[in-house]
Amino acid sequence: MNVDGKAYRTIWLDADGRSVVVIDQTRLPHEFVLRTLRRLGDVVSAIADMQVRGVPLIGAAAAFGVCLALRRDAGDAALENACESLAATRPTAVNLQWALHEMRSVLCDLPPDRRVAAAYAHAARLCEQDVETNQVIGSHGCKIIEGIAARKPSRQPVNVLTHCNAGWLATVDGGTAVAPVYAAFDKGIPVHVWVDETRPRNQGASLTAWELGQHGVPHTVIVDNAGGHIMQHGMVDMCIVGSDRTTVRGDVCNKIGTYLKALSAKDNAVPFFVALPSSSIDFSLVDGVKEIPIEQRGREEVCKMTGRLESGELATVGIVPETSDVANYAFDVTPARLVSGLITERGLVAADRDAIVELFPEHGAAAAGGSGETRGGV
Amino acid sequence: MNVDGKAYRTIWLDADGRSVVVIDQTRLPHEFVLRTLRRLGDVVSAIADMQVRGVPLIGAAAAFGVCLALRRDAGDAALENACESLAATRPTAVNLQWALHEMRSVLCDLPPDRRVAAAYAHAARLCEQDVETNQVIGSHGCKIIEGIAARKPSRQPVNVLTHCNAGWLATVDGGTAVAPVYAAFDKGIPVHVWVDETRPRNQGASLTAWELGQHGVPHTVIVDNAGGHIMQHGMVDMCIVGSDRTTVRGDVCNKIGTYLKALSAKDNAVPFFVALPSSSIDFSLVDGVKEIPIEQRGREEVCKMTGRLESGELATVGIVPETSDVANYAFDVTPARLVSGLITERGLVAADRDAIVELFPEHGAAAAGGSGETRGGV
Repeated sequence: MNVDGKAYRTIWLDADGRSVVVIDQTRLPHEFVLRTLRRLGDVVSAIADMQVRGVPLIGAAAAFGVCLALRRDAGDAALENACESLAATRPTAVNLQWALHEMRSVLCDLPPDRRVAAAYAHAARLCEQDVETNQVIGSHGCKIIEGIAARKPSRQPVNVLTHCNAGWLATVDGGTAVAPVYAAFDKGIPVHVWVDETRPRNQGASLTAWELGQHGVPHTVIVDNAGGHIMQHGMVDMCIVGSDRTTVRGDVCNKIGTYLKALSAKDNAVPFFVALPSSSIDFSLVDGVKEIPIEQRGREEVCKMTGRLESGELATVGIVPETSDVANYAFDVTPARLVSGLITERGLVAADRDAIVELFPEHGAAAAGGSGETRGGV
Repeated sequence: MNVDGKAYRTIWLDADGRSVVVIDQTRLPHEFVLRTLRRLGDVVSAIADMQVRGVPLIGAAAAFGVCLALRRDAGDAALENACESLAATRPTAVNLQWALHEMRSVLCDLPPDRRVAAAYAHAARLCEQDVETNQVIGSHGCKIIEGIAARKPSRQPVNVLTHCNAGWLATVDGGTAVAPVYAAFDKGIPVHVWVDETRPRNQGASLTAWELGQHGVPHTVIVDNAGGHIMQHGMVDMCIVGSDRTTVRGDVCNKIGTYLKALSAKDNAVPFFVALPSSSIDFSLVDGVKEIPIEQRGREEVCKMTGRLESGELATVGIVPETSDVANYAFDVTPARLVSGLITERGLVAADRDAIVELFPEHGAAAAGGSGETRGGV
């Protein structure tokens, strides 16, 4: 997508054909800073410090981390060590484990002297796959936006609410939840996005607002509290959010606060969609509220806020009494009954076990929550 | 309530018997600063800039604003002008209009030379009334907390979630929504409060957390997004919030985001109570979503965050891209169907027109939404 009119991805191979360049997302929206990652340790810290974040993007970054590690030592032990230290950066991100598993499968049977080239080739392939998946998700979701546009008075924008950042910054390019918006915008369909600030890390205000602005998409930043009011007053036509993990029946684990927006959407008959690559569906889980462990993060994210002083410098201020206890749950689960549909790379599917298994039959045998007979069979 | 062990109200007459002293709530939780208001303009800007805020407190402050105006000119025009400029400071809070109406009724028939003394006397009476009302609300609400405590394992705290600040800082003293918590705490009933941060102005993190901490009440600050998750997981026994305006059928207009918490409470069978003085019931309105005007405030509240630098200095940082649009709705409306009950100075009442009119029969004749025959009668 565009930054100051120039097309960018979030991660790419440097001109030297070896180093990897990423956008430092901790500096957005204040500064557009590129970072060159030259060795495994650079990638590990870029993921751990959330300079790169977003489920698909950290998978891609980890793949390149393996490449950089193998350039120094392509032996078995080095490969294993690289995968282990990358996997430990964000232990809850399923997609990170998946990308490392893919890399390991491709590389482990090759002789060491062929591993480096194969690693770079496969990392590039994972990136291309991500971009293609997001294009298809965008195209499926765009049809929903077009349908709403057709029912509105001519040239009235379709108002889409999104939470957190599942835009192009969360992926290699294109985004998941925001992909349908970009597709509609690029087709000339009038769209406007309500951007939830998304406390505590403010990915909405910092990242989604910034990337929409760079691409020229009309948008309005609101605090997380405001979504209910604007839905009550007919100012939202649809919600689209991303997902960190989706169960086989369509319960959606996503950034904390997603569930509250889904409740409000239901109460106001606003359709609530979740856009996701099928790699984030966990076919082994049924009941998201009971079964998905919710990461708790540090108090600093709630108690401190970083931004730009009037002088232009970045600064961090404390905003909670130091003696107060603080809790910081990073995700919540939206039950399938509140989800209007999942937008996947294979199309729109109901948040329902049978529908999901029908669309992804290759996972049917392993999928949890089927009838007793199916699960009990040998 | 106590600040560093010393009892304070939020507003009082200075030693000179004329000026009014308030706690500057925009400096909390970082600094405890008192401000002396000497003329009408000081009160208008203290309310508009939210140095004093909270429905009952701005009513009391407005009453003192009238006193200060009359000290300069006690004529009819000056009285009217003072009421008009005070009324314009905050459009949503009906209590402000009520306090000004009370002052005007007492003063308008008096000769100008008797108005100043009468104004101070009546402003003092409104303050005492507020303190008494809150004590009674606290005592009625405490019974609900005691009931929950009796059903929990011994000494397990009753977990109360509150939004924004309807604590003692929002009133002359005692609080409305937090009054039952203080009453329970002071009786030795174990309580713990989940404090919603309450973006954009952070009255929860800045004010509720601070005042609970000063009084020694166990509490945990969470982002506004977190309430749904903790209710899904059984960590909330009840919600209590305040109200800026309540319709005759029990629709509740309160700080933006209240509606989202009420939806989550309903979805998880958590009782959702609203504590309010009856002066904030607007008997002329029925449908809150349709009829209550919602104040929109400036973008700065969303885009900037003030806090304390590590050096100890206060600083303000920008957190939203400067080119992004911003919307800032200050309140939302929670429909009566989501409200378990209203805790008033006359006791607990259902969020229902008939029940409310029965408890406040003196407003029955003027109450909107009755049967056609009643309203049509001459």
